[in-house]
Formats: sequence, structure tokens, C-alpha cells
Amino acid sequence: MKLVCLQKNLQKGLNITERIVGKNTTLPILNNVLLETQKGLLSISSTNLEIGINCLISAKIEKAGSITVPAKLFSGFVNNLPNDKIFLELKNNNLNVKLLNYKAIISGESAKNFPIIPKITGEELFIVNTVILKNGLNQVIYAASFTENRPEINGIFINIIKDKIIMAATDSFRLAEKTINFNKKSENNTSFIIPIRSAQELLRILGEKSGEVKLVVNKNQILFSIKDNNTDEPSVDLVSRLIDGNFPDYKQLIPKDFKTKLIINKNELLNSVKISSVFSGKINDVKFSVSGAKNEIDVVAKDFSAGENSSKIKGEITGDDLEITFNYKYIIDGLNSLSGENIFWGFNGPTQPSLLRVLDNRDYFYIVMPIRNQ
Amino acid sequence: MKLVCLQKNLQKGLNITERIVGKNTTLPILNNVLLETQKGLLSISSTNLEIGINCLISAKIEKAGSITVPAKLFSGFVNNLPNDKIFLELKNNNLNVKLLNYKAIISGESAKNFPIIPKITGEELFIVNTVILKNGLNQVIYAASFTENRPEINGIFINIIKDKIIMAATDSFRLAEKTINFNKKSENNTSFIIPIRSAQELLRILGEKSGEVKLVVNKNQILFSIKDNNTDEPSVDLVSRLIDGNFPDYKQLIPKDFKTKLIINKNELLNSVKISSVFSGKINDVKFSVSGAKNEIDVVAKDFSAGENSSKIKGEITGDDLEITFNYKYIIDGLNSLSGENIFWGFNGPTQPSLLRVLDNRDYFYIVMPIRNQ
Repeated sequence: MKLVCLQKNLQKGLNITERIVGKNTTLPILNNVLLETQKGLLSISSTNLEIGINCLISAKIEKAGSITVPAKLFSGFVNNLPNDKIFLELKNNNLNVKLLNYKAIISGESAKNFPIIPKITGEELFIVNTVILKNGLNQVIYAASFTENRPEINGIFINIIKDKIIMAATDSFRLAEKTINFNKKSENNTSFIIPIRSAQELLRILGEKSGEVKLVVNKNQILFSIKDNNTDEPSVDLVSRLIDGNFPDYKQLIPKDFKTKLIINKNELLNSVKISSVFSGKINDVKFSVSGAKNEIDVVAKDFSAGENSSKIKGEITGDDLEITFNYKYIIDGLNSLSGENIFWGFNGPTQPSLLRVLDNRDYFYIVMPIRNQ
Repeated sequence: MKLVCLQKNLQKGLNITERIVGKNTTLPILNNVLLETQKGLLSISSTNLEIGINCLISAKIEKAGSITVPAKLFSGFVNNLPNDKIFLELKNNNLNVKLLNYKAIISGESAKNFPIIPKITGEELFIVNTVILKNGLNQVIYAASFTENRPEINGIFINIIKDKIIMAATDSFRLAEKTINFNKKSENNTSFIIPIRSAQELLRILGEKSGEVKLVVNKNQILFSIKDNNTDEPSVDLVSRLIDGNFPDYKQLIPKDFKTKLIINKNELLNSVKISSVFSGKINDVKFSVSGAKNEIDVVAKDFSAGENSSKIKGEITGDDLEITFNYKYIIDGLNSLSGENIFWGFNGPTQPSLLRVLDNRDYFYIVMPIRNQ
């Protein structure tokens, strides 16, 4: 193996792939990245056996070959180098690296011992803009369960119906659902659950990209294939296992109508909740008193030893007056994911789930359970 | 107690004082800030019994008085409020707070139970510009010992000689010394040691200030009195205990002459050390080979399993050739504290302390011990 590439490109490729590389003591080769030459390209791969990432960067290949080298060491070295031509050459299983007056010899391990990252082939389920997918995922991921005792909600549920991608996540206290429309009609309606860690990795990679994502699924695995509009940027494939389980049938829980309806300025409500949170108790309880007569909502928190506070906000209220208590963190999460000035908040009494969405947009909603009156 | 002030000013005062407030379970009143009215001012104080901070902000006093309230709760509430007039009023030991449509009632505890922060009076030792003091402290503080088993080096040594402030810190592996000249001649030469935590707090407060610091010392305590040029900014007093002990007599360790002298570009050297550090071993060892014939320094690191690297940099070398090994972290620390393009690095063989300073400035130097050859 012998090649030349730009330090900047190698650095990008390593930074994308090395993040999932941990300290694996039982299978030390997982601490390495796999370097493989292709025609005019250097392929950089990493895997933690749950997620595999492959990244292609431009390179001038003088001699084909492959090797694996310690990921953190190699990227630590490359990250600190200036941007110039970097020369890589394999000699006796050692990767020789040279750039201007800097050089290194890195002990490698044969590519044969590196786990195979499965190739997922077939027709794509959909192609979607990177920014749209990123924003959509960000609107649901925080509602997922981050504990592992219920694997089926420790991920993002994705449901493809005709020309819609519906993404949902829940931790059983709240649920977020986002619908993305796309042009190509899917032949096969399908659904699956992506592990939360894979979704986080995908988000991290999407964060730096503007282009398109192609999605291919088989029975147990999913491939996100990311092409950047800027051809200088590396193209990236992320392969993940899918979660084997049934996502809760949440459709029946979505309230259809509401006994109390509130239309309110998002930022005013968010500020009031943040301020009240300072005085909330151990269970993060903040009480909302909704009064139709005054067209006013009163946000109140009390701590028996520290004191209490309250703030009043004007809103448009129809239906029954209501006192309802929420974990303020859930309300802040929900409000932060709404991208509009005015929001709708619907209630069905102090013990039933409430629904938050932007006033004039139904592509996204957030359902949150109240804290029962103590 | 009844007063009005601006939210912005109260927020500043609380943020300056509340940082040293911890979670004290044996003396819970230390979790509070003390609020006291003065003529046209609100005084906000906190203490952890080692450091005391007092901050004065403008206020319109309607009724004199004092109270202590939980620091984190009060500042958490105030920080989230918009900038407007904030009304504070004491009612039955509760602090009532009101701003626009926000209000809070905070349980207070009598000011009588709050520890007295000692008043340190007397003539000032010196008055110095906040930025000069901040930069000087930053150039030495990182070299201090952060462990507590040798209290006398767990701080900053300050030595006043006529019209000079000499500050030094060491952890016994390296030593940094900075000299600041000031106008007023001090009558009494004196020296003392400030605890590292107090110096860190002082730096934090100085970071936001441009003005003057007045320093007053008595046998066991020191007062830093900080006035901002901007009269809207709160004035701050920091009182700290002094460390009871003798700072090492380091003057005898400062090398007077050198067997090998190196003049080199700071950033080139810094880059090379950072790059080599990736390959250094458990003791962070990086080897420097200084060759007068080639006028070149070779920075080398080797790890028996991972590999090795090296980089060559041109320099101006006089005296003996040398191979010397350092903890790269100490060299990076030293180089980062030098504010010049070209630096001087003097050596007396591979086992003796070396000295780093800016080429054309002797106000600051850094002495660092090599790692003995293994």
C-alpha cells in the first residue's frame, strides 16, 4: 500500500470514523481503523460490531493494499499536522507516515483480522435531504428512552407509508412524532427501530453535511449512505443493526379532541417554566393553572423549605379551567423542539396526556403525561 | 429591608459571589449569600470560611436591613429573569422578589447567624492594573502544586521588593516566576503565599474587570479590592487566608549559565511537541536531540507497541550537543505561557534543570526538570 492524500481529507475521514472506536480489550482490533485503497480513493472504516462506518476520501494510489492501525493514535497524530500532502506507505506491517518534516511509524495489524462490515444492497427506501433528516431526528430523539431495560423504546421508530417517513420516540412518559414528506412513493410500506446510539452517530455525521441520504434496509440492518453536495467532502456509509422488537402502538394514545385548549407564545411560556424550575421539588414538579376567564396561565413552583414563585402569562384559552402538574424538564424539552412563535397546548383534565404542537403545523407533535396530584 | 435595583446588576453581583458557595451540610448558612443595604448600595457577600467575597451594586434603598438567602436558588431565579427593575422586600424573614409578572418568596435566615468576613484595613501594599495582575497570575498559577500534601507549594508565592511584585509557583518538577513593576515604592519588603483556590477565584473575577486592584495584607489574611473603570460594574472585595509556611528558597536553583543554548520559534516547537506527544509513553516522555552542527532539534517519541514519530525544527544552537527527555505536558505548559515569537531555552546537560523564557524579555521565566534517562 502506498498513497498520497491531503492531511485535511485524512483528518476528516478519521474524525468521522474514529468516534465509535472505544477501548475494546476482548477484541483489540476494534480499536483500529481499517485503511483500504480503492481506485482514486482511500477507504477508512471502523466498527463496534453494532455500528459500522465507512468513509471515502480522495487519494492518489501508487500501490494498492490495506492495513489496520490504532484509531486514536493515528487520528491524534494526523489532527495535529498542518494541511499538506501526507504520504502513507506500508512496510512490514508498519504504516510509515510522512508530511514535510514530520514522520511516524505506526505498528499495524493485518486487515484480514478486521471484522467484515456487512454490505447492504438493494433498492433504496427513500432519498432525503441531510438537513431535513437531521432536523427531524433532533425533534424526536430526546424523547426516546435512554435506559436499556426496554430495548424496543431504546431507539427511534421509523415508519414508511407511501410518501411519508414517520419518526417517533418515547420513554413512556412522553412521545414525539415527526412526519417528513418525500417525493418518491415507496412501494413497500415498512417499519423498523434504529438503536439510539446509531441515531446519535448519524446525527453527528449529518451535522457537518449538506447533501442527500439514501436509506437501504434489510431484515436486520440498515444503511445510511450520505453524499455531500460538496464533492471535496468525504462520502460516508453508516450501517447499523436494527432493534428486534415491537414499538408500542402509540396511535391509540394520541388525543383527538381536548377539553381545554391553550394558544400561547412559545418563548414566554419557556421562560416562565425555566424560572419556575428553580423552585421545583425533587420530582421537578411545576404547576400550570389555566384560567379561561382571565385568559391567563399561572406557572407556579413551591418548595416547602426554600420558598415559592409564580409567573403569569397571557394566552388564548377555550374550554374548562384546569390545574395540572408536569415535570418541567419534559415541558422544556417539548417547547425547545417546537419551531414556531405560537404554540397549541391541548389538555383533557389533570390526569390525561396533553399534546403540544406549533399552532399552524401538524407535521410534528409532542405528547406528555402530567404528574398525578400528590 | 426594601429596595429596587436592576436585574442585570443583581445578576452580576450574585454570579461573582455565589461561585464559592458550596453544599455545606455542617454549617448550612454558608450555602446562603448575605444581602445588606448600604447608602445607595446593596452589599452581597459569601464565604466558605477560607475565602470571603463582597460585592457592591447600585440600588435605591427604601428601607435599610439585611437577610441571608440560599445562593444557588436566588441566583438561579434572578439569572433567568429579563433585565428590568427588580423589587426586593423583607417580610417575616422571607425575601419577596418581584419583577414585571414574575414573583417569588424566598425563605431567608437571619443575617446575625452569618459568619463575619474579616475587615482588613491598613495602607495598601500596591495598586496594580487588573489586566496586568491577571496575565501575571496566569503565567505562574499552572506551575503550582494542586495536591494538598505540601501546603507551602499549594499556592502562589508573592514577594514585594521595593517597586517589584515577584510571583512564583512550583510543584517541585517545574517553577514559574513573573516580575511586575509598579510605580509606588513599597516601604516594607514582604512576602506571603496565597492559596491556589483563592488565586483561581481572583482570576475568575479579574477576567471580567478592567480597572485597578488594591492589595492590603495583615499577618494571616489578604484583601484584593477591585474597582472597575466602568462605574456601572460592581466593585468587589476578595478576602483570603494566607498559607502558613515557607515557600522553597528557589533562587539558588535558577541556572546562571548554560552549556547548551537554543533560540527557536515558539509555535514550531509547540507544534512538534504536541504531535510527538501522541506517541509518548505512560510517563509522557518526549526526547529532544539538540545538534549544534545541524542547527536542528529533533523531537522524538516512541511507544514500544504503537510505533514512533519524530519532527525536525531549525534553531540557533550554541554549546554542547544534547539528548534530553521531558514530560511533554510540562513543556507545553511552559511554551503556552511565553508570549513571544522566539524563545530561549537553556540546558546544563541531560539531568539538570533547563530554563525557558522569551528571547528578549527577562520578566518571566520557567524552569523545568528533565526526566532522567531510563
